Amino acid sequence: MAANRRAELRERLPDALRLYVLTDRRLARGRDEARIVADAIAGGATAIQLRWKQGPLAEALRVGREVRQVCRDAGVLFIVNDRVDLALALDADGVHVGVDDLPVAETRALVGERMIVGYSPPTLEAALAAERDGADYLGVGPIYPTGTKADAGGAVGVEHLARIVEAVGIPVVGIGGINASNATPVVAAGAVGVAVISAVVAADDVEAAARALRQAVEAGLRSRA
Amino acid sequence: MAANRRAELRERLPDALRLYVLTDRRLARGRDEARIVADAIAGGATAIQLRWKQGPLAEALRVGREVRQVCRDAGVLFIVNDRVDLALALDADGVHVGVDDLPVAETRALVGERMIVGYSPPTLEAALAAERDGADYLGVGPIYPTGTKADAGGAVGVEHLARIVEAVGIPVVGIGGINASNATPVVAAGAVGVAVISAVVAADDVEAAARALRQAVEAGLRSRA
Ligand code: NI
Repeated sequence: MAANRRAELRERLPDALRLYVLTDRRLARGRDEARIVADAIAGGATAIQLRWKQGPLAEALRVGREVRQVCRDAGVLFIVNDRVDLALALDADGVHVGVDDLPVAETRALVGERMIVGYSPPTLEAALAAERDGADYLGVGPIYPTGTKADAGGAVGVEHLARIVEAVGIPVVGIGGINASNATPVVAAGAVGVAVISAVVAADDVEAAARALRQAVEAGLRSRA
Repeated sequence: MAANRRAELRERLPDALRLYVLTDRRLARGRDEARIVADAIAGGATAIQLRWKQGPLAEALRVGREVRQVCRDAGVLFIVNDRVDLALALDADGVHVGVDDLPVAETRALVGERMIVGYSPPTLEAALAAERDGADYLGVGPIYPTGTKADAGGAVGVEHLARIVEAVGIPVVGIGGINASNATPVVAAGAVGVAVISAVVAADDVEAAARALRQAVEAGLRSRA
């Protein structure tokens, strides 16, 4: 395990978070996570998050090891959602926590410099606190209305994201209701990339869906150049 | 944090697991966890397990720190259920995992020698595997029919517990449907103690309930002497 993986990954983060695909078995229509992840990477995904919302953790370990291998072979970030213990057991590149999970400070204390920590701040103040407490990037949203997360609340819009980007010194990705037709303004507003679940994981053609999203992200980056 | 707390606690475990009380906010009828734990200890509880089945982990940290302090002041074991990350963040004396949680081997790898690991084996084979993988004690049950755990399955009885006690070299506690009137045969069958939830946590008089259970455990120990 890299004892100081964090510093190395922090340098790469702005590029590595351009297209961040979150897995969700419940949306995958019976398809294998590792297959979906491989297809998403072929289409241009730069980071993968393993979301494990139900089921035995022994199964999460099995699936997570497969997904991790696919990510490592491709040089793509492998991040685990919610559970710091699962992230450590999988020797992930990072862990992503939210308001219901272990707080950022405790998460950082547990992982040390072995991995990056992402956080989903509900407010601008929470974003600033998370940066102080050791978060390496932020996921801000839901940018647009979404049906994926029952607890996602009302859409915050790209203006809210732009305010957080201005206020913090760490990379921000937009999440929530993002697809190929609305991703460009999220990046134009200052996000380093977008995070998606259903737009890729539930797509008929995962690779094509990822490619269209990646192109929309690149268009947003060009608009800021 | 004690880097080698495990070895010290292993020596104490047979005595420290005589009356093992598991918290459950949903059964506590609005009463404060730390209060219930203090009363249970006054009645003779020798170990406490923080069970956190729902709600933000920030709240689990707050409650857990209170409960830990009550336990430390009394010299009583403080163990965290299910989540290795929460156990580490709380600097608990131990973590207890089951079939849906991180496997024993991965749990041991994460906690090292900093704490003890308990496991709930569904079968005799699982009990032997857990001992090999680094479990320090086992919780076997449900001994009697119970309404507390929806997924607890049919009662296994004291004979099943006795077979596991014979087969392994680590302490075994019985759990599931145990109260003051049926605890003695569990210990007589070879358990070092009993684990209870509702029999203490949901009692009108928590201290009296713990005292009656502890007396039933001591009667079981005397029957083996
Ligand atoms: Ni979460």
